[in-house]
Amino acid sequence: MNFSCTKTKLQEAISIAQKAVTGKSPMPILQGILISAKDNELILIGSDIDLSIETKIEAEVLQEGSIVVDAKIFGEIIRKLPNSLVEIKTLDNNSIEIICEKSKFNLIHMDPEEFPSLPRINENIIFSVSQKMLKNMIKSTIFAIAQEETRPILTGILFEVKENKLNLVALDGYRLALRSSIIENEDVINAVIPGKTFNEVSKILSDEDENVNITFTPNHILFNLGDTKIVSRLLEGEFIKYNSIIPEEFALKVTAKRLELLNCIERASLMAKDGNTNLIKFDIKEDTLIITSNSQLGRVREELNIILQGEELQIAFNSKYLIDVLKIIEEDEIVLEFSSSVSPCVIKSKENNNYTYLVLPVRLLSN
Amino acid sequence: MNFSCTKTKLQEAISIAQKAVTGKSPMPILQGILISAKDNELILIGSDIDLSIETKIEAEVLQEGSIVVDAKIFGEIIRKLPNSLVEIKTLDNNSIEIICEKSKFNLIHMDPEEFPSLPRINENIIFSVSQKMLKNMIKSTIFAIAQEETRPILTGILFEVKENKLNLVALDGYRLALRSSIIENEDVINAVIPGKTFNEVSKILSDEDENVNITFTPNHILFNLGDTKIVSRLLEGEFIKYNSIIPEEFALKVTAKRLELLNCIERASLMAKDGNTNLIKFDIKEDTLIITSNSQLGRVREELNIILQGEELQIAFNSKYLIDVLKIIEEDEIVLEFSSSVSPCVIKSKENNNYTYLVLPVRLLSN
Repeated sequence: MNFSCTKTKLQEAISIAQKAVTGKSPMPILQGILISAKDNELILIGSDIDLSIETKIEAEVLQEGSIVVDAKIFGEIIRKLPNSLVEIKTLDNNSIEIICEKSKFNLIHMDPEEFPSLPRINENIIFSVSQKMLKNMIKSTIFAIAQEETRPILTGILFEVKENKLNLVALDGYRLALRSSIIENEDVINAVIPGKTFNEVSKILSDEDENVNITFTPNHILFNLGDTKIVSRLLEGEFIKYNSIIPEEFALKVTAKRLELLNCIERASLMAKDGNTNLIKFDIKEDTLIITSNSQLGRVREELNIILQGEELQIAFNSKYLIDVLKIIEEDEIVLEFSSSVSPCVIKSKENNNYTYLVLPVRLLSN
Repeated sequence: MNFSCTKTKLQEAISIAQKAVTGKSPMPILQGILISAKDNELILIGSDIDLSIETKIEAEVLQEGSIVVDAKIFGEIIRKLPNSLVEIKTLDNNSIEIICEKSKFNLIHMDPEEFPSLPRINENIIFSVSQKMLKNMIKSTIFAIAQEETRPILTGILFEVKENKLNLVALDGYRLALRSSIIENEDVINAVIPGKTFNEVSKILSDEDENVNITFTPNHILFNLGDTKIVSRLLEGEFIKYNSIIPEEFALKVTAKRLELLNCIERASLMAKDGNTNLIKFDIKEDTLIITSNSQLGRVREELNIILQGEELQIAFNSKYLIDVLKIIEEDEIVLEFSSSVSPCVIKSKENNNYTYLVLPVRLLSN
């Protein structure tokens, strides 16, 4: 193998392919990036079996070939090189030579034959969606996935297309995040994407309106961004019927300024850190929401102007779940819907129906 | 106690006094900040016995008094309050009430009588120096102090005034940093300041040309910045006679571009991380410095244009020590002086004599 390309492009390509290299695999080959040079093009692939990322860049290829190099050290070397042309060629002793201006590295390489092959996916059915929109939808749901592996399906995000809507849903047993967008597509899709995959995908998706093409197979999802392809296995099993969890009716509705509420909750939770319970109490009165918390350190009382429609209510929460939601919402005014002190609270924007967040209350002994 | 002051000023004062609160002391009272309200002024003190920081701000004091509050939680509460007036008063049950707009906190406080008293220092002999200059001098020497406590005196910085010069010196047995400034002062001072003290002092010193007044006692140093006073014990014992370590003569002298050399060494050290030796080799030839390194991962060769006066030389270093120095120096061109492959290398600016860095070479088996 013998090729040359610019340092900048190579560095970018490594940083994309590297996102799939977790370094946690017991297989040493998976700490590497597969580099294939052919037809004046380099293809770089990183993989941890579940997730694989392939990206290509232009290069001047003098001799075709493939190698696998350690992703971390190769990435560091290329990053530290001067902004110039990089020449890379294989030597006889299982090593490559990297030359850039007056720098010359010799680095051992691994056997490309050992690198796992990517699942072949036939891209004949394509679901196309704006990168910017998908990125935004991932960001506003991914925080609610389960962190523990006790119910693996909940470590993923439901990707649901029906009735001209794309819905992403995450839930962890304590809260739920649902983000919807209207799309012009008659497909019906129901798949659960691992949280890790969406996390890396959202870093690669652009902030622009260009589309990403998505193909599903029974076990895999493929994101095609043109020069970059991401393949991930899907999570097996049935996602929870989230619609039956979201209450359709409510007894009272509170309208509040998002930032004011967030600040009050953040201050109240300072006193709730003791014993890591994050317990804060809401006392919802006419025109006023009183938030209190106490611990061995002391106690706090916050007061906030609200608009209340319906009955007064007392209810308690883990402040972390409310803070997560209030930080993600971008709108200034929000609506909170309650039924009772033991039923979930639904949080929405006052302005649109793009998302629905649900947070379970903490049941107090006095309830 | 009962006072009110602006949130911003209180927050600033806490962040200054808090720098002395390490949270590592077995005495719970030292996790607190002592707040004394008197004569429309608040005095806040943080201390870990060795180092104490006192700062004062304006306040409207309705009732004089003193309390000690946990620095961390009190700091967090004040930081999260709205930008407004904060009222603080003691209640009967060993607690204080903090009110700011619609937020109300009750926080337990500790007994001010338990708080250690600061050493009384008579400020009749004052050494005055530009804050900006001192800050800069600390920054360019502190990285070379010893991290281990095996020789406690080396965890400090020598503060030496003689012959109209202020010298700061740090050394750890492998390298030495000497920073000098010409001052208009006939004093003779020789004291060793703990590295931790200088670290916190440099965060508080301003980047402007205003002066800080310094007073020495046999056991303490006091920095007086007007509203803020910092008192630290000195390290006991004699500092190493650093002048006898710095070679006055040299066999060869290399002039190089600082950033080029830094980049070459950083790249070379990528291959030297294996086994954490950071070993890189210099091959100094006429007009060219060749830097090489190798490990199980591979090897690297860097080449750099230099001006050599004197004999050619081969010498090896721990790259970390050279990188530390080259990152601190601000000038574009530097001079490296060598005597032999087993003698220290002296690094200076080509333009001035403000600093002298010394790095010991690594002795190779082949030497």
